[in-house]
Amino acid sequence: MEDEQENIEPMRDAAIRLTMMPRDTNAHGTVFGGVILSYIDVAGAVEAGRHTKHDRFVTVAMKEVIFHEPVFMGDLVSFYAETLRVGTTSITIHVVVEAERYGSLGQKVKVTEAEVIYVAINQNREKIKIGNKNQ
Amino acid sequence: MEDEQENIEPMRDAAIRLTMMPRDTNAHGTVFGGVILSYIDVAGAVEAGRHTKHDRFVTVAMKEVIFHEPVFMGDLVSFYAETLRVGTTSITIHVVVEAERYGSLGQKVKVTEAEVIYVAINQNREKIKIGNKNQ
Amino acid sequence: MEDEQENIEPMRDAAIRLTMMPRDTNAHGTVFGGVILSYIDVAGAVEAGRHTKHDRFVTVAMKEVIFHEPVFMGDLVSFYAETLRVGTTSITIHVVVEAERYGSLGQKVKVTEAEVIYVAINQNREKIKIGNKNQ
Amino acid sequence: MEDEQENIEPMRDAAIRLTMMPRDTNAHGTVFGGVILSYIDVAGAVEAGRHTKHDRFVTVAMKEVIFHEPVFMGDLVSFYAETLRVGTTSITIHVVVEAERYGSLGQKVKVTEAEVIYVAINQNREKIKIGNKNQ
Amino acid sequence: MEDEQENIEPMRDAAIRLTMMPRDTNAHGTVFGGVILSYIDVAGAVEAGRHTKHDRFVTVAMKEVIFHEPVFMGDLVSFYAETLRVGTTSITIHVVVEAERYGSLGQKVKVTEAEVIYVAINQNREKIKIGNKNQ
Amino acid sequence: MEDEQENIEPMRDAAIRLTMMPRDTNAHGTVFGGVILSYIDVAGAVEAGRHTKHDRFVTVAMKEVIFHEPVFMGDLVSFYAETLRVGTTSITIHVVVEAERYGSLGQKVKVTEAEVIYVAINQNREKIKIGNKNQ
Repeated sequence: MEDEQENIEPMRDAAIRLTMMPRDTNAHGTVFGGVILSYIDVAGAVEAGRHTKHDRFVTVAMKEVIFHEPVFMGDLVSFYAETLRVGTTSITIHVVVEAERYGSLGQKVKVTEAEVIYVAINQNREKIKIGNKNQ
Repeated sequence: MEDEQENIEPMRDAAIRLTMMPRDTNAHGTVFGGVILSYIDVAGAVEAGRHTKHDRFVTVAMKEVIFHEPVFMGDLVSFYAETLRVGTTSITIHVVVEAERYGSLGQKVKVTEAEVIYVAINQNREKIKIGNKNQ
Repeated sequence: MEDEQENIEPMRDAAIRLTMMPRDTNAHGTVFGGVILSYIDVAGAVEAGRHTKHDRFVTVAMKEVIFHEPVFMGDLVSFYAETLRVGTTSITIHVVVEAERYGSLGQKVKVTEAEVIYVAINQNREKIKIGNKNQ
Repeated sequence: MEDEQENIEPMRDAAIRLTMMPRDTNAHGTVFGGVILSYIDVAGAVEAGRHTKHDRFVTVAMKEVIFHEPVFMGDLVSFYAETLRVGTTSITIHVVVEAERYGSLGQKVKVTEAEVIYVAINQNREKIKIGNKNQ
Repeated sequence: MEDEQENIEPMRDAAIRLTMMPRDTNAHGTVFGGVILSYIDVAGAVEAGRHTKHDRFVTVAMKEVIFHEPVFMGDLVSFYAETLRVGTTSITIHVVVEAERYGSLGQKVKVTEAEVIYVAINQNREKIKIGNKNQ
Repeated sequence: MEDEQENIEPMRDAAIRLTMMPRDTNAHGTVFGGVILSYIDVAGAVEAGRHTKHDRFVTVAMKEVIFHEPVFMGDLVSFYAETLRVGTTSITIHVVVEAERYGSLGQKVKVTEAEVIYVAINQNREKIKIGNKNQ
């Protein structure tokens, strides 16, 4: 857990950051896991694009999605993404999600984390080698 | 894969089934992974409730989410959920997602599958033993 | 009413099934009639497609939509659709909507029913005879 | 049809009027019947409130919903509502829907009409007599 | 303020009118300013089209948006739009927003007003002179 | 304009950042001004909270909203917010919106900017002095 904290520090420029709205919540007042998963997917793709300069990816797998804490309506939620591995056609991104509770004066809580694997594709949705966009 | 096919057959009563709308799609005309993940989360919780007769769960982890094929707008998508393991406080559900392509006369394709772990909770969001709802 | 009950039994494979979310509710905590009507429309079209093997329909009329009971947030709602009549260019579908109340251990309530009439069309939105898709 | 035209003229103050957005459309570029039905439901309730000075109604039935013409994205759609009958506890409203096509310089088309029946209720969702809000 | 009241009277045919839904509200039970701003933008464009017979506009600026009173869920909200000035390529519209509180028997409150400037464009998104649609 | 560029540089930690989805676009393929305005409103409130340590604000006015360039589906849009003035009960925030075009390898364009005025309120929605949260 300390490792994770240290890990988070340098990733200050969030891939995605937004506040949670009533439409994102379930009957118990907490945000749907699915809403968080959607933004994890987008945040990972933003990082994949920045890292490789490719602009088309499909998500092929999510591994080890851990929901540490609930997310509440009004939370300001930041999605920090970091490249873990670049393979021939795939890239693995680690996404950490932090929530700043509404009315908490900036206190942050790690709420979710996930590892997402993307594959680079061309305009015809065919897998291509990373680094070679003209395939 | 044959195992999976056999596996799917008896689960005829989908936990969730719906058609994909334009609001569910991304810039490339395919449905967001996040939309599918949201319904996987709901479908697993429906099965968890049916299996245990508990009605409150939180999702604690998703493992091995595999996106086999894209989902397209207009597809009729069914989420089949099956209980894999019941622990003291947690339950693990396997969800298989099949798409019936628009205009395909009923032909189905397995598009996604995932393993989701839920924990039973009480009204105060405290973890409780499965089988003991009066804790 | 008994007739309806018997009627419902064999239609076990719901055309559409999903849980109701906060975004589907009005100021009084019940689900909008319009949300239910939307899914009735989709469920009827799914059945029309299965029955005729056509894939394009437009809804021309809804008759006798009866709202028996309210639908609440968290309900698992199933839309069962059955073909009543097939005409030259039109098909009439009966849709029964059942809600499984949140926390009710599987108890189901018939909440809405409707009769919906669709007309088969081709790619140019022209009416075509059912059974003749190459018109 | 001429009758209907004459009928429409005096109802100039639309109960509901709005433009149709991409999120309201299906795969064929036309607006979902369900979206139109939702606004018909709201427009009828607005008229029921104005006519009776009650503010709580539930929709009990829709009769004779006719879809005359498709509605397209970008259309400015007006919902005109008129009270047909007031019973002891129920009120029947006729709703006419007109679309002003995008780029048509104000030309209007009657696209849908419906008859909707509401019942007045109190805060406990119990049926009450219209004209007697203190029941 | 009296001027504004007088001003409002003749604009009886609302450009846009609709009820506010739970999905439009924030954590404090009031409607998001952004939701109101979106409809102001649409209402002004409707008026710009009616006044000039052009059908393509882009919003270039909003001036003096004043939020007088909050808007609540269930309010019936009307957007009245009036042309203030027509320039060579731009048009300035004044939009007044009135809310009829839920359960208020028709009492209206001016909740927001704004001045919006649009520029007429052609199909290639190029600025064109108002009155000359064939540029 | 160069001033503005220099201005933007130090505001690296976006108040809000997200990608634009199909549901955010209009019939012409560009993002609704209203969608951008909604996020400007939220981004300004995030900055107001950070700057003053208050957590409740209402938006009272928007001034000088300028739409420089369209926003397209797929753009990664960042909302940078900076406090301009703090008054007794109000705070004025300048929000600059930058879009990173889809497939542009990180090239950014300033698309919108606005000045938003918020007033600090307490739990009863009464105006309070900034710096004195116990009023």
